Amino acid sequence: MRTSQYLLATLKETPSDAEVVSHQLMLRAGMIRKLASGLYTWLPSGVKVLKKVENIVREEMNKAGAIEMLMPIIQPAELWQESGRWEQYGPELLRIEDRHKRPFALGPTHEEVITDCVRKEISSYKQLPITLYQVQTKVRDEIRPRFGIMRSREFVMKDAYSFHLSDECLAQTYEKLHEAYCNIFDRLGLDYRPVLADTGSIGGNLSHEFHVLAESGEDAIAFSDGSDYAANIEKAEAKAPSEARPEPSKELQKFDTPKAKTIAELKEHYGVKPHRGVKTLFVYGEADEQEQRPLVALVLRGDHELNELKAEKLEGVQAPLEMASEADIVKAVGARPGSLGPVGLNTAIIVDRSAAVMADFVAGANEDDVHFSGINWDRDVNDYQVADIRNVVDGDPSPCGSGTLSIKRGIEVGHIFQLGTKYSEAMKAGVLAESGKNQTMTMGCYGIGVSRIVAAAIEQNNDKYGIIWPKNIAPYELAIVPMNMHKSHRIPDIAERFYSELQQAGIDVLFDDRKERPGVMFNDMELLGVPLTLVIGERNLDNDQVELKNRRTGEKQLLDIDGAVAAIVAELAKA
Amino acid sequence: MRTSQYLLATLKETPSDAEVVSHQLMLRAGMIRKLASGLYTWLPSGVKVLKKVENIVREEMNKAGAIEMLMPIIQPAELWQESGRWEQYGPELLRIEDRHKRPFALGPTHEEVITDCVRKEISSYKQLPITLYQVQTKVRDEIRPRFGIMRSREFVMKDAYSFHLSDECLAQTYEKLHEAYCNIFDRLGLDYRPVLADTGSIGGNLSHEFHVLAESGEDAIAFSDGSDYAANIEKAEAKAPSEARPEPSKELQKFDTPKAKTIAELKEHYGVKPHRGVKTLFVYGEADEQEQRPLVALVLRGDHELNELKAEKLEGVQAPLEMASEADIVKAVGARPGSLGPVGLNTAIIVDRSAAVMADFVAGANEDDVHFSGINWDRDVNDYQVADIRNVVDGDPSPCGSGTLSIKRGIEVGHIFQLGTKYSEAMKAGVLAESGKNQTMTMGCYGIGVSRIVAAAIEQNNDKYGIIWPKNIAPYELAIVPMNMHKSHRIPDIAERFYSELQQAGIDVLFDDRKERPGVMFNDMELLGVPLTLVIGERNLDNDQVELKNRRTGEKQLLDIDGAVAAIVAELAKA
Repeated sequence: MRTSQYLLATLKETPSDAEVVSHQLMLRAGMIRKLASGLYTWLPSGVKVLKKVENIVREEMNKAGAIEMLMPIIQPAELWQESGRWEQYGPELLRIEDRHKRPFALGPTHEEVITDCVRKEISSYKQLPITLYQVQTKVRDEIRPRFGIMRSREFVMKDAYSFHLSDECLAQTYEKLHEAYCNIFDRLGLDYRPVLADTGSIGGNLSHEFHVLAESGEDAIAFSDGSDYAANIEKAEAKAPSEARPEPSKELQKFDTPKAKTIAELKEHYGVKPHRGVKTLFVYGEADEQEQRPLVALVLRGDHELNELKAEKLEGVQAPLEMASEADIVKAVGARPGSLGPVGLNTAIIVDRSAAVMADFVAGANEDDVHFSGINWDRDVNDYQVADIRNVVDGDPSPCGSGTLSIKRGIEVGHIFQLGTKYSEAMKAGVLAESGKNQTMTMGCYGIGVSRIVAAAIEQNNDKYGIIWPKNIAPYELAIVPMNMHKSHRIPDIAERFYSELQQAGIDVLFDDRKERPGVMFNDMELLGVPLTLVIGERNLDNDQVELKNRRTGEKQLLDIDGAVAAIVAELAKA
Repeated sequence: MRTSQYLLATLKETPSDAEVVSHQLMLRAGMIRKLASGLYTWLPSGVKVLKKVENIVREEMNKAGAIEMLMPIIQPAELWQESGRWEQYGPELLRIEDRHKRPFALGPTHEEVITDCVRKEISSYKQLPITLYQVQTKVRDEIRPRFGIMRSREFVMKDAYSFHLSDECLAQTYEKLHEAYCNIFDRLGLDYRPVLADTGSIGGNLSHEFHVLAESGEDAIAFSDGSDYAANIEKAEAKAPSEARPEPSKELQKFDTPKAKTIAELKEHYGVKPHRGVKTLFVYGEADEQEQRPLVALVLRGDHELNELKAEKLEGVQAPLEMASEADIVKAVGARPGSLGPVGLNTAIIVDRSAAVMADFVAGANEDDVHFSGINWDRDVNDYQVADIRNVVDGDPSPCGSGTLSIKRGIEVGHIFQLGTKYSEAMKAGVLAESGKNQTMTMGCYGIGVSRIVAAAIEQNNDKYGIIWPKNIAPYELAIVPMNMHKSHRIPDIAERFYSELQQAGIDVLFDDRKERPGVMFNDMELLGVPLTLVIGERNLDNDQVELKNRRTGEKQLLDIDGAVAAIVAELAKA
């Protein structure tokens, strides 16, 4: 492609409404433009990357034995009513009506449609197992779309679904696709990790997410330094401390704390170290028969954070988790947030494992501006249960039993699930088993955020000059930059020859043939992140040489004109 | 692909709700399944064809210098309001609201979005001309979706848009893309014709449709036998007859016609030949200031048909054309349809060119159950205008001046337009011209119905056994059918070897490794339309031979096992 006939669309300024670096660079490099909130047009350089990602995903899915199909974006409400998700799914499910006022949804996912398809097409165990996939536009009506195409309302996903007679067979396919996902992310050239994950609203028994590691990631991942263990912090178990709880050594005592509403203020004004105090959070419990929701107190060490997913799975706690209102707390406890604690409560109390081994600790006295010191479990608080309700932190022992955990940030780009029979049971998707009886199929589902990968790759691969693409997904593999082409006699000829020969060698080339100053051209190619740049200038031509610049290493090498194409092919073949 | 691990999904019975052969065969061959009215899931064999079509389209568009991008399916109402089409476009535009009650449309086409994009990204004449395209899912909320994916509500289109400083430049790009379209349809292996077309609701000055010729086509195309002239019947001009109008030779005379409401009944009961009578149709004229719509009479020779597009373009006629209600006709004329005619009317009268050269003809007397004979223009009817308002018919002189017309049926699979400034003016899309002044861009647009091509190809290529794919878009190029594989020792080995070697030779192979009777396998492969079938059976193996069957010709040839792969490669390379 010649830039003179292209829509390069690079921007000098960083758009002010772009918060994360991938969003900024995708705008600046002319890859995307916002059409409306959460809706983006992919400009030519963006589409080139998107299609390269899509092709790698497709090739590896085919290799893994998955079969491509294509389901409609517009899905009839009936199927979602059958699975129960028409009611359960929040307003992120964009519900529409056609001209006849019939209800449809724009699909955020296709479990219902594929299950309906398979129950009609597959009738015998002989046709199982089967894995079907599609690469399709998805719609999720995010309440606050953000970070460009990272969290947009319309996006491209690869979603696959597998169907089996037994959980063993499902586990085998799950493993095979886990491996296919690793092959995909390897070929994409990304630093990624598969991690244990929560199954969330999709449902199922076992689930892994694939994360591209990047400081800016929305998710926190816990890694063990003693094993391969890795898990989303949502999922990672905080083990019970191995040390026993010390015996009480202090008396329960009130002290005035008018200046402290938080753990930090308690430390600042009264010298209470965070790990010596606890915080008490109130959430709603499950509603009783009169639709009354009791409060439940969650008690954590002052320096720990609540893990909402863990808490909402506990018996007696309402799911999804909802923090109690101040009014309800005051009504039940008699004090406002800032002075709450476990002593003397008449609500249910759930104590985190780490808080449960504390002795002589500090907490609010359920009396405004007053705290207790010297609190001890069983002596001062009797009716409570202990559970894992916190996020793991750096240095925690790994739940795998080996090593300690460290926390890194990641961007979720893939998610695989052993769904089990959640959908096949609700939708009566069965086959004739070898026994002659009807048997409900068991299912897996496997997603990759194709468009999100583009942003994630940039979050992981950039510097102050712009994007640094892994070569397999770069919009172009090489840029030809002829310096002052329009002032020279021989430069245009040589540049044209390289353009032709490099394309013939199968290289995806962008030929910057604009009448621009070299500085402008270099800046654009760096911003766009093209892995190699071939610089053609008078001085080097005097020695029958051209210069090859590597975007990632910054390395420059002089190549003899005669061997340059071969040298470039060799350079691109390197890992 | 092995059929044992595939979703072949062929059906023995023809589904009763499928009217056209492509719809029937796509269902029977396991290519598509209906999800809801006008919404189809593409099963694996369908997607394979769809993707092959898409790739050919993409490659030829790239060769023609068009640049790929991707615009959202969900489009903000504001842009459609700006172009005026939010109001103009009928209920086929599927209008939706997001969770914040903001209005959007699901795009049936992308003129607004691309014009918005280009006016923001392109500011100088130096960046022109440019042609941008996408392959994207489109939505059109058809009132009566039919013929499977031929007229569905969600479909895949390639749509391209070009931007220019001048009409001359637009004409050049139009020519280039006209040629690219011919290359595409050539490579697809289809018998097609580019034909002059009406610009319809898209607008513009010049337009061609690309039609796949097939008896079942919804469109009628007029071809000249004396030149390259071809036009959609909507567009083809019916020339004025060259003969002069004969002088009147009969008196105007009433006769009773209680048994005749139609031209056919007039012939049956009263012996009036259709070409000796006229029919008079009433449509609404343009509304006056009081919103009153006068009637306009359209008069055609009895054996001719009204061309609504021609009529609605005439001055004084309401567009879109609307036939007058019986009540309005009775009120204005005093008689009901069946006895209407031009004599004594006080409405405007438009007479088709062919009706205008008739003499001594028959028409209704505007009195129930009564007709006139011996009517003559100017003597009996004075205030009328003459225009071309009929469809051309077989044998009409070609409007190109050379040869006569014949009518064939076609399926529209592509449509290109010289749009001019319709959108760029409404949306103020200008660039800085060389003169330093702002200049409105002139535009072209170019569509291909990617998914519709799949159905059109089948309409043109089928027999009683099923589909006969052109090789470039066949789901598989070759099927291996081993006969009674599971009873033999050597057949599985040889079949496996061919499967591996043919794939290595770059051939897209379907290996029918099911435990089925040979008849079942042959039927499925014929239904699916695989161009070549390699039959491996005991008898031929005794002579170290295998049999190659050609789906289209029915020809069978015996190949020596040793040279078979090379022979197959050569066979597929044939045009």
